[in-house]
Amino acid sequence: MTYLIDGLQYANWSERIFRQMRAGGVDAVHVTIAYHETFRETVSVIERWNRWFELYPDLIFQGRTAEDVAKARQTGRTAIFFGSQNPSCIEDDIGLVEVLHTLGLRFMQLTYNNQSLLATGCYEDEDTGLTRMGREVVAEMNRVGLVVDMSHSGERSTHQAIEHSTRPITISHANPASWYPARRNKSDDLLRALGAAGGFLGLSAYPHHLRGGGSCSLQSWCDMAALAVDLVGPGNVGIGTDLCQDQPDSVVEWMRVGRWTKRIDYGEGSATETGFPAMPDWFRDNRDLAGIRAGLRAAGLDEATADGIMGDNWHAFFGKSFGAECHPEAAQLNAAE
Amino acid sequence: MTYLIDGLQYANWSERIFRQMRAGGVDAVHVTIAYHETFRETVSVIERWNRWFELYPDLIFQGRTAEDVAKARQTGRTAIFFGSQNPSCIEDDIGLVEVLHTLGLRFMQLTYNNQSLLATGCYEDEDTGLTRMGREVVAEMNRVGLVVDMSHSGERSTHQAIEHSTRPITISHANPASWYPARRNKSDDLLRALGAAGGFLGLSAYPHHLRGGGSCSLQSWCDMAALAVDLVGPGNVGIGTDLCQDQPDSVVEWMRVGRWTKRIDYGEGSATETGFPAMPDWFRDNRDLAGIRAGLRAAGLDEATADGIMGDNWHAFFGKSFGAECHPEAAQLNAAE
Repeated sequence: MTYLIDGLQYANWSERIFRQMRAGGVDAVHVTIAYHETFRETVSVIERWNRWFELYPDLIFQGRTAEDVAKARQTGRTAIFFGSQNPSCIEDDIGLVEVLHTLGLRFMQLTYNNQSLLATGCYEDEDTGLTRMGREVVAEMNRVGLVVDMSHSGERSTHQAIEHSTRPITISHANPASWYPARRNKSDDLLRALGAAGGFLGLSAYPHHLRGGGSCSLQSWCDMAALAVDLVGPGNVGIGTDLCQDQPDSVVEWMRVGRWTKRIDYGEGSATETGFPAMPDWFRDNRDLAGIRAGLRAAGLDEATADGIMGDNWHAFFGKSFGAECHPEAAQLNAAE
Repeated sequence: MTYLIDGLQYANWSERIFRQMRAGGVDAVHVTIAYHETFRETVSVIERWNRWFELYPDLIFQGRTAEDVAKARQTGRTAIFFGSQNPSCIEDDIGLVEVLHTLGLRFMQLTYNNQSLLATGCYEDEDTGLTRMGREVVAEMNRVGLVVDMSHSGERSTHQAIEHSTRPITISHANPASWYPARRNKSDDLLRALGAAGGFLGLSAYPHHLRGGGSCSLQSWCDMAALAVDLVGPGNVGIGTDLCQDQPDSVVEWMRVGRWTKRIDYGEGSATETGFPAMPDWFRDNRDLAGIRAGLRAAGLDEATADGIMGDNWHAFFGKSFGAECHPEAAQLNAAE
């Protein structure tokens, strides 16, 4: 079975986009439900998703396990997996890790661009690594099956997350900095450490992460994918497009500024390019996702490796990541079920 | 299989009480997690329960379905089912019905003693029945599988809940007023309507609901149970003790006063009896629950009816109540699983 999975999107969701997911044959998408939202605000976003699940049961449903990806394929729908790009959703309360996991959260970044209560974001001057609370929360995320995502974190924090986590972590949407040295892209050294620990890289199609920006060619991107396979491992790479379809520019301002400053922060943009950048012409929406496969083959990747990147690798990663950590006592009690 | 289920407790939970549940062979308990708590405060109570589930996995676990009662029996543990005695936990937001159901809420009273956003409590002078939001929320509770509980509601509101709900409702802890005319007990007329609609009555052992208060004999209580069976039906009666074990009197003040007044309201108590009343000597804690069976048999109930009241009836009610309402389309999609 070859699955088609996008490991990161944050669109202005609508029936039109859900139908494009179906037209594109996309089996599963990890969607962002929080950037700077508090717990209560994040719950409101979940409520909006619950409404979409109720309104469009023939197009989408909430994914909780790897098996839901298979169920999506069998029923011709797309499984939606929740993630947060910031730990703002757990506030200062470690108990919210399990609560949000029960509500379906499957990925949480330890930081967005700034210092958080848990670790350091990639825009800070000093990266002090995991905080005291950060180490506790990583252990709790490991326990319940909430994946540590370090896409926006600093290099030292990311190394420490790889070392401290007892389960593989992810960088769900970024590219090798040796291909294109964006602040959000990751060093070869870090990517090798990620792969060596069983961690996972989702390749971004967001213009600020691409050599040549929005005019980056599919072939250049697929050559980069081949490089990522060399760095992280053939079973440890997938796609995390960072598609922000149909969003007004007010949303990119929320993503960058939140409530942490009264001034404007342009993040990866600039005073002359304040809004969302235009996506590459080979990836405008979910209907273009499957088209990446041919580019991967043309870049010299064999069929199994290309299939892995398109979705099978994420599927395997979901399978080992979303359940509770196995304890002998729990296993014994559950065996009686 | 004969199960032992208590349909309502609100104790000052501790390892000691969980061990008493095991010593008493109690398979399942519906526990109150909110009286006047907001959503966020209710989530904090759930966090506390999650911690207890983590600390005492050999004694208790969270119950979500009727099958969990069987699992509890098989693994020698007690399944804990969550309920709220007030809709304060959903605030003014119907979307929180599904969110709390996902977190395991299985019962919600439409009111505590006062008027709520949904219906009228039994202490108000005027009972105006279900509100506009009340009708919407009942439909949403029906959809997701959250049981409507009218234990503390007014008579008219309860009749309307029975009529408006498409699924059977419950009065989880109250007794027939024709046996003892407490404000919280229910008229024969109401109990007949409850049973005729497939609804469920949990019999209370809380002294304010008992003829003779705390000195009510087991036999008098069991005679009352036989009366309840006549009114509601042999398959529609269970136990809902309202056990408030080990609670300080500050808690009964929170239950009665919450944040709705700056003065003291004594509820079922009085200025001379402000605290929790002493429980009857035949029901001090979970170890006494199984002892009720002999009293039921002595009151003339046959074995099947007594087994039903002790737990099998709640078990059957759980089985038809906690899952999502069945829709043909959903059934078709799920059949492909």
